[in-house]
Amino acid sequence: MRIRLDLGYDGTDFSGWARQPGLRTVQGDIEAALDRVLRLDDPARLTVAGRTDAGVHAHAQVAHLDLPEQAWLAAPGRSDRSPGEALATRLNAVLADDVVIRSVAAAPAGFDARFSAIWRRYAYTVLPGSAVPDPLRRREELRYPGELDLAALDRAAALLVGERDFAPFCRKRPGATTIRTLEEFDWAARGERLVANVRADAFCHSMVRSLVGACLAVGSGRRDLDWLRGVAAGHERSSLVQVAPAHGLAMVEVAYPPEARLAVRARQARAIRTLPRA
Amino acid sequence: MRIRLDLGYDGTDFSGWARQPGLRTVQGDIEAALDRVLRLDDPARLTVAGRTDAGVHAHAQVAHLDLPEQAWLAAPGRSDRSPGEALATRLNAVLADDVVIRSVAAAPAGFDARFSAIWRRYAYTVLPGSAVPDPLRRREELRYPGELDLAALDRAAALLVGERDFAPFCRKRPGATTIRTLEEFDWAARGERLVANVRADAFCHSMVRSLVGACLAVGSGRRDLDWLRGVAAGHERSSLVQVAPAHGLAMVEVAYPPEARLAVRARQARAIRTLPRA
Repeated sequence: MRIRLDLGYDGTDFSGWARQPGLRTVQGDIEAALDRVLRLDDPARLTVAGRTDAGVHAHAQVAHLDLPEQAWLAAPGRSDRSPGEALATRLNAVLADDVVIRSVAAAPAGFDARFSAIWRRYAYTVLPGSAVPDPLRRREELRYPGELDLAALDRAAALLVGERDFAPFCRKRPGATTIRTLEEFDWAARGERLVANVRADAFCHSMVRSLVGACLAVGSGRRDLDWLRGVAAGHERSSLVQVAPAHGLAMVEVAYPPEARLAVRARQARAIRTLPRA
Repeated sequence: MRIRLDLGYDGTDFSGWARQPGLRTVQGDIEAALDRVLRLDDPARLTVAGRTDAGVHAHAQVAHLDLPEQAWLAAPGRSDRSPGEALATRLNAVLADDVVIRSVAAAPAGFDARFSAIWRRYAYTVLPGSAVPDPLRRREELRYPGELDLAALDRAAALLVGERDFAPFCRKRPGATTIRTLEEFDWAARGERLVANVRADAFCHSMVRSLVGACLAVGSGRRDLDWLRGVAAGHERSSLVQVAPAHGLAMVEVAYPPEARLAVRARQARAIRTLPRA
């Protein structure tokens, strides 16, 4: 049977999501906690909605795990809690406090944390040079050394919304498309901070941070919208775009379709993302 | 001449405010930065509004420093900024990013960061056991393992408001009074979090954390208000009161009287706090 885990983490002290030998990663820590708590015959293997890079945070990340039914039913032990509640509590007791399992539940039929997702939302937080930094927020926002024009940031973002080839903003993987639908991309002020809201059906590698880096070039006045139009029209990764630092970025939401469409969505997404459309 | 510094810090990686040989402290870091930036003949010596313990944060802390006038006038160098702006920028460039100088200014006559202050305000943040922790807030809130009754917390706090001998809640220093006026002490919900607001003319050592610890005993149902009345009536430090962990605590505000009353206030406070009234 398949289990859905909802979780969050402070990415500061992790070498990203994906398990890597000899490095502390979110996937590595949670899989080790699952192995310890569930004592499975085969090691636990998680599939995640959005693989995040080193230093990137997640307020709302989703993963799934396949598990023998008897392990699930045995999870509460002698407590009167549900298997999901019991498993979440036991995992959190084992995990370090920079990763938190928010909930665990049996997944509906056809659910795939990665391929059933219809969109992901990220937030990127920037503190402009004129603002006074908050030492307690330094791990989750970029202290930008200069001034930024909110309207210019927002115009740059608006220019990139829609379905297009995001190759100029992506680290290319062979055999994978870089065509994505950027459904929302806007900037708003939150107090002295400037926060980018970025939503797409899916993201290719380093895409959000490259989009943010391109906006910062325009918002600081170093580049203009014509420059951005030129960059965006390319079909190769652009060396003109600076990838914004990881620590300003956080995954904030993942959306799934109603239960009846989960399996169809997973088949579609798998096909689209492994066979280039263009 | 006397300089006022407004500052904030993440207390996690500091052994508190006060300079200590061989340990990283906020005072030590800022004094070293002042020495480096101002190249004074005598080492810089700061006086602070509220000395904080290891792990305690400050959103708004105030300190003062006496300095030769020529050092102040030389602070802008060749820039067109004011001495205060220039000094704040240069200090922040030298300081690690867990401490931030918000502003620097020439202090009005009679100003003393410690003795002119008319009150200090602290906040203590608790996440009850039923709430889902946010990994990015783990350094600034106490994850309380059980449930807490907000109304009971608030009733316990209300019982302690007023002028009284806070000896049961203090680590005693010889020759210093433990009589204080607790001007505000209340608890409020902020989302799933419970936040104590604590304001007093001054605090003795470990007082806020002891007051919070006593409330947690009542709010969790382990103790009742009669127990608290009994504890509060004592004249010695009570072993019944648990000192709440440091990391939930943050200094949030310091208030000073209008300029004309600064010096009078400093004389009064100095007298009250070094000669016991009782």
